[in-house]
Amino acid sequence: MSASRFDVVGIGNAIVDIIARCDEAFLSNNAMEKGFMQLITASQADDIYALMGPAQEQSGGSAANTCAGIASFGGACAFIGRVAGDQFGKVFAHDIASIGVAYDTPSSDAGLPTARCLVLVTPDGERTMNTFLGASTELGPEDIDGDLIAAAQITYLEGYLFDRPEAKAAFHEAAALARAAGRKVALSLSDAFCVDRHRADFLELVRGGVDILFANETEITSLYQLNSFEDAAGAVRAEAEIAVLTRSEQGSMIISGNDTHDVPADSVEQVVDATGAGDLYAAGFLSGLTRSLPLGTCGQLGSLAAAEVISHIGARPEKNLLELAKNKAILT
Amino acid sequence: MSASRFDVVGIGNAIVDIIARCDEAFLSNNAMEKGFMQLITASQADDIYALMGPAQEQSGGSAANTCAGIASFGGACAFIGRVAGDQFGKVFAHDIASIGVAYDTPSSDAGLPTARCLVLVTPDGERTMNTFLGASTELGPEDIDGDLIAAAQITYLEGYLFDRPEAKAAFHEAAALARAAGRKVALSLSDAFCVDRHRADFLELVRGGVDILFANETEITSLYQLNSFEDAAGAVRAEAEIAVLTRSEQGSMIISGNDTHDVPADSVEQVVDATGAGDLYAAGFLSGLTRSLPLGTCGQLGSLAAAEVISHIGARPEKNLLELAKNKAILT
Repeated sequence: MSASRFDVVGIGNAIVDIIARCDEAFLSNNAMEKGFMQLITASQADDIYALMGPAQEQSGGSAANTCAGIASFGGACAFIGRVAGDQFGKVFAHDIASIGVAYDTPSSDAGLPTARCLVLVTPDGERTMNTFLGASTELGPEDIDGDLIAAAQITYLEGYLFDRPEAKAAFHEAAALARAAGRKVALSLSDAFCVDRHRADFLELVRGGVDILFANETEITSLYQLNSFEDAAGAVRAEAEIAVLTRSEQGSMIISGNDTHDVPADSVEQVVDATGAGDLYAAGFLSGLTRSLPLGTCGQLGSLAAAEVISHIGARPEKNLLELAKNKAILT
Repeated sequence: MSASRFDVVGIGNAIVDIIARCDEAFLSNNAMEKGFMQLITASQADDIYALMGPAQEQSGGSAANTCAGIASFGGACAFIGRVAGDQFGKVFAHDIASIGVAYDTPSSDAGLPTARCLVLVTPDGERTMNTFLGASTELGPEDIDGDLIAAAQITYLEGYLFDRPEAKAAFHEAAALARAAGRKVALSLSDAFCVDRHRADFLELVRGGVDILFANETEITSLYQLNSFEDAAGAVRAEAEIAVLTRSEQGSMIISGNDTHDVPADSVEQVVDATGAGDLYAAGFLSGLTRSLPLGTCGQLGSLAAAEVISHIGARPEKNLLELAKNKAILT
């Protein structure tokens, strides 16, 4: 196996977030499930947008956020995902490239606009997401660059890709290429409803195709259809090589064979916007893993990155994460 | 004169801000004058954008920011300015309408994209702006709705409009209609270099066509080509009905005939991003004036709104300004 040119290559939906604050009533009045993601059509997107308050736009997308985080930790990272040639597409491409992530997926000219996610942030900082996938659905197996996959220590995939058949095929193509090259594959389960839609596929991956699994509490209990976190943790221990389970302010649990690492969450003054917490946790964790650090330290880096991103609006880091980790003496 | 349907109608360039942090060297390396605005071409915009770090997008535009602030104070406000039918145009139209500002200028189909301003924020919170005017230059006298102007207590115009002949004609049309309807006209001088480009026009307006003048220290000294603020304040006292002079952390001075009101700035923990400080000061001042409050109180409302907007990224208020003013017992 040759030396790796990249620490991580991330594959996911390329999305611009449109972020507005709302009250709790807005969610219930518009049949939104608080804290989760729902897929919406173009016309639903227009309807919801018209009801939203003043917003701001920032690049998002789950795996893309993770890539931005890895770059902020000083890691070498690449991203694969598709935008259109419109203004939001240019915003997405600019933001990910400008933080140092290699990104050269050609933009789509099929007529669909760049994906956008209408993010509603309630006063408690929780985010509820409505995603119009647009041009990101144009990602297919032909976009997976085998040389790139082989050149990265870890291929990181978001579960959201399973929501479209072509993207799912791209996912499988990338995982197969990574394994063939002797590389690791990491998967984020993305969202409890997403798990619900694709449970059989995800279980098969956990049992065979994936080396590192990321899930939060609702996702892992949904995967195994169990009521308690402890039972789900026990189930995943028997099946996954490394399982990284995040639990918001309760921190995270890293499971590998008989080992268990409980990692506390980093305290924040106020949760301003929880968008990107899981994505940035994964960025920290993978930044540690690609540096061959102990799993507990990987978790500490995850907690640090998650705390940074929830302390401000938007799902991309505002501070340099490598500097933060050095200040806390987790990295040198 | 009939009752007014609007407190203020604002006319200005309809712009989406693209905001990124940078260090001081970035400004000097790219020949940008710190704290000022320069006009750039489409290709310069592409070049600067490519050099910028990760950014976020928010609606901006000087007079539009002021309108958003007046709406946040609970005022009835309308805005006239032109976007294109692209994604940034939809962002602009959404944000201003969703805060309650009446906005129905038809979007341009002339092929130019919506105006954008590349805002670089240095560590001290100062902002340096690079504006590609795009579709906002399509604003002309035919866009000035005489009924709307006659229905507003105050027509508020940004000096930036003078940078394009058609917009300048729209400016004069609006001012003439307001005066004919017995309404007041307010002008912001916008930027010291803008004053430099249009000094004769602005002096003529101050001497005749304008009732309320807003200027910061560099703008008013540029207008009269005087070195000291005190001399410039003396010059404008002799010519303007009401002159509102802002001086950043030194507060503001309101001059009307022989009256002078010195108003302190509201303290902020940290200047995060100075973008919109002058625009929001004007929003507070006009919100007081249209409620027939004393000039000193108008200035207090200006200080309050400016302090809110510089304490976060972006030029639009994040908190409800009416609530803030009630909490401070300036409004009831």
